[in-house]
Amino acid sequence: MSKSEIQANFSGNALLANVVIVLSHTSHPGNIGAAARAMKTMGLGELRLVNPDVFPSDIATARASGATDVLESAKVFASLKDAIADCVYVVGSSARGREFAGQAMNVRAACGEAVAHTSSGTVAIVFGCEMSGMSNAEVAHCQTLAFIPTNDAFSSLNLGAAVQVFAYELRMAAGLSDGYAAAAFQPATQAEIEHMFEHLETALVACDFYNPQRPRRLFARLRRLFSRTRLEREEVDIFRGICAAVIAQSRTR
Amino acid sequence: MSKSEIQANFSGNALLANVVIVLSHTSHPGNIGAAARAMKTMGLGELRLVNPDVFPSDIATARASGATDVLESAKVFASLKDAIADCVYVVGSSARGREFAGQAMNVRAACGEAVAHTSSGTVAIVFGCEMSGMSNAEVAHCQTLAFIPTNDAFSSLNLGAAVQVFAYELRMAAGLSDGYAAAAFQPATQAEIEHMFEHLETALVACDFYNPQRPRRLFARLRRLFSRTRLEREEVDIFRGICAAVIAQSRTR
Repeated sequence: MSKSEIQANFSGNALLANVVIVLSHTSHPGNIGAAARAMKTMGLGELRLVNPDVFPSDIATARASGATDVLESAKVFASLKDAIADCVYVVGSSARGREFAGQAMNVRAACGEAVAHTSSGTVAIVFGCEMSGMSNAEVAHCQTLAFIPTNDAFSSLNLGAAVQVFAYELRMAAGLSDGYAAAAFQPATQAEIEHMFEHLETALVACDFYNPQRPRRLFARLRRLFSRTRLEREEVDIFRGICAAVIAQSRTR
Repeated sequence: MSKSEIQANFSGNALLANVVIVLSHTSHPGNIGAAARAMKTMGLGELRLVNPDVFPSDIATARASGATDVLESAKVFASLKDAIADCVYVVGSSARGREFAGQAMNVRAACGEAVAHTSSGTVAIVFGCEMSGMSNAEVAHCQTLAFIPTNDAFSSLNLGAAVQVFAYELRMAAGLSDGYAAAAFQPATQAEIEHMFEHLETALVACDFYNPQRPRRLFARLRRLFSRTRLEREEVDIFRGICAAVIAQSRTR
């Protein structure tokens, strides 16, 4: 990682440290565990629970699959009002629109807003209960209502899956979009590639596939193919080895 | 929905109809069900399974939670090679980089590429088994390797959650990012807002809160607040009702 990448990761993680996930009136402890796992994979650590039906729970711990620290540090509140008392901005996740919602936008736009507000304090993303979502009274506490775009005919995401999508978009909005890169091999130079084409022509003449008097579009086609692949030096060497073998073979006829 | 929105949805869904999800060597039938549900919520319908440990399965059906049509139409193959035989572009989901991967990018970029390739044929997104991901032989069938950016210290997404994130990004890349809008109320005109401020000044004078001889920054502050809220006509009416009540009250003193 370069110094600037390390700095970007440091500041991205600092932004995410100001985001809390609030699950209100969750019925199934498995979903609390799945949410904890989803949060931790994306670098979120603070889970708040409003009146969960069952918590703590072995089912939640099993589904958290290693994110037990998130579960163990989760705080339980009696109401959404209490859970978000210290927050400067609250996004509610809702599958359907509500009459008195302040503003509505998709999860990508909402996570962008949420991360922007982390500069002024703690930001909450709130998820209602599995069956009916947030109550209207809970919606009234949210500045923004956010939806995950869905198939009109089948719009019901699992709660853990919804938390995963929001957590992923929060990470992307915080600028933490990197992972691994493709393995870096030495690219071939244009001169090496030209030598390969010369070698290839000799080989294709030797095996009677190509007649320079009637070239048609063969080499134009081959050049088009290889120009798209950004050839590596080792690959050029492989092709030249094959050409050499074909030429040697043709001499033994 | 407007005519142009309907057309956009039609073409977006046509793009998604050319994307298949391939799960290779899946151990847990619950994850197959979760993947089917995740797919259907995002408008994807074609699931292909390579050598699943257990399928069909009641556990898969329960976790699919209504996406049973996706499960029932799922085709089972003996190898990844067979499962992707008709595909023109193959993206492999991998949590870690592999030496001979053609190119590597994050899930957002990869889903953009995948959707672009649907114009020339069927595109596959491949997920390996839960414990170790795709084999190197499977990776060799992929043109692009894609990762979901994760927390370095805890990078293990549940398989169903990973399918949800890819399916969501495919839907976004297909331009299907819409959902509900905030309820549309009649916005107040500037003249209505000015009358509200005049009424407010009269009321605040009447209740001895405001002295026009010493205005300080009160109305500048109030104007700043209301300018951010894009006042609606009904809200202006509510404030004018409060002002009228305060003025009436002050006259009875």
